[in-house]
Amino acid sequence: MSELKVSCFTISLDGFGAGPNQSLDNPMGEGAGALHTWFRGTRTFQRILGDESKGADGPDEDFAARGFENVGAWILGRNMFGPVRGPWPDDSWKGWWGDEPPYHVPVFVLTHHPRPPLEMKGGTTFHFVTDGIESAYAQARRAAKGKDMRLGGGVATVREFLQAGLVDEMHLAISPVVLGSGESLFAGLDLAALGFRCTEHVPTQSATHIVLRKD
Amino acid sequence: MSELKVSCFTISLDGFGAGPNQSLDNPMGEGAGALHTWFRGTRTFQRILGDESKGADGPDEDFAARGFENVGAWILGRNMFGPVRGPWPDDSWKGWWGDEPPYHVPVFVLTHHPRPPLEMKGGTTFHFVTDGIESAYAQARRAAKGKDMRLGGGVATVREFLQAGLVDEMHLAISPVVLGSGESLFAGLDLAALGFRCTEHVPTQSATHIVLRKD
Repeated sequence: MSELKVSCFTISLDGFGAGPNQSLDNPMGEGAGALHTWFRGTRTFQRILGDESKGADGPDEDFAARGFENVGAWILGRNMFGPVRGPWPDDSWKGWWGDEPPYHVPVFVLTHHPRPPLEMKGGTTFHFVTDGIESAYAQARRAAKGKDMRLGGGVATVREFLQAGLVDEMHLAISPVVLGSGESLFAGLDLAALGFRCTEHVPTQSATHIVLRKD
Repeated sequence: MSELKVSCFTISLDGFGAGPNQSLDNPMGEGAGALHTWFRGTRTFQRILGDESKGADGPDEDFAARGFENVGAWILGRNMFGPVRGPWPDDSWKGWWGDEPPYHVPVFVLTHHPRPPLEMKGGTTFHFVTDGIESAYAQARRAAKGKDMRLGGGVATVREFLQAGLVDEMHLAISPVVLGSGESLFAGLDLAALGFRCTEHVPTQSATHIVLRKD
């Protein structure tokens, strides 16, 4: 059955998925670069950059690779496509990901800025959804044709989908980093009441991987 | 130099150090028993119970044992001595820990209930401090005679000492458990602004051990 999954979603040990003072130059906020050390070392990430020989295998890689398996559509919050602060760029803006984004499937971008679909090289088409998360979910589900949907972030978007009960599985990576402030994944969110429990726990030297599922 | 340390302080992966609905029967709240699986397996904990042969060595044990090294005094929040809900019991109440508590040094209990010091077997004396955390800190520091002080919890007490800038080191164990609600260690607390950074990260199959220090 088609599920909505959050994968490789990385938080600090104090629960922040993005640091303070997000900006165009620093879209994940101060200190957040250190969150993703585990991911940058993986073969999957280095393959996206163009040379997988620079990446390593192991449990971190296993989780990175799983995040791309059987994904028929993505959903992204607005900030995962365009800059966090300042006016939305004009339609010449084609996302953070270059001419050939690493999605290779339909991607549904939540935004208040209507825009025609944007077809990129390699099978990625960005669709801009202006009528809310339920609509994005329904469109992504149709587009995924029985495969899973992956929800790519950011923090506010993940929280919104969790609260709406639309997320089936969440893989979290807890990095050994203190952010102190920024966007908290957990604040005010009762994951137990939402039905989640921990079904996998794989600690590595770089991160603690946790899989939460609703069953 | 004498430092104030939090040791073996265990939180759920969503940051809760105690679960919801704390009661006399369930002083740590619902679901919180699962937090301390890592600790119950250690030789140190089993030694406290009376038969260390039931406990295991390894990194979990190393952290459990470190928490008792060079400790000259303890500070406990009120709930670590007496029941969470309901009226404070009369002076016949001698804590959760039996006739010979596992402290073996002076213990300073924060409370609004004045009471003469209570001397127990094995070197533990409970002192009841009614004039706030700074006073407890000062008294514990004198009693520790150059050794360290250990702050034993609960969550609200640890948060209070952190916010007051009195904690030098904190060992956290993050357990692979979702609590969803209860007492959050991190909510509204900016550990980075307070000067903490992660200086050790030791993942085990039972927990992810993190040491935070201010330097």
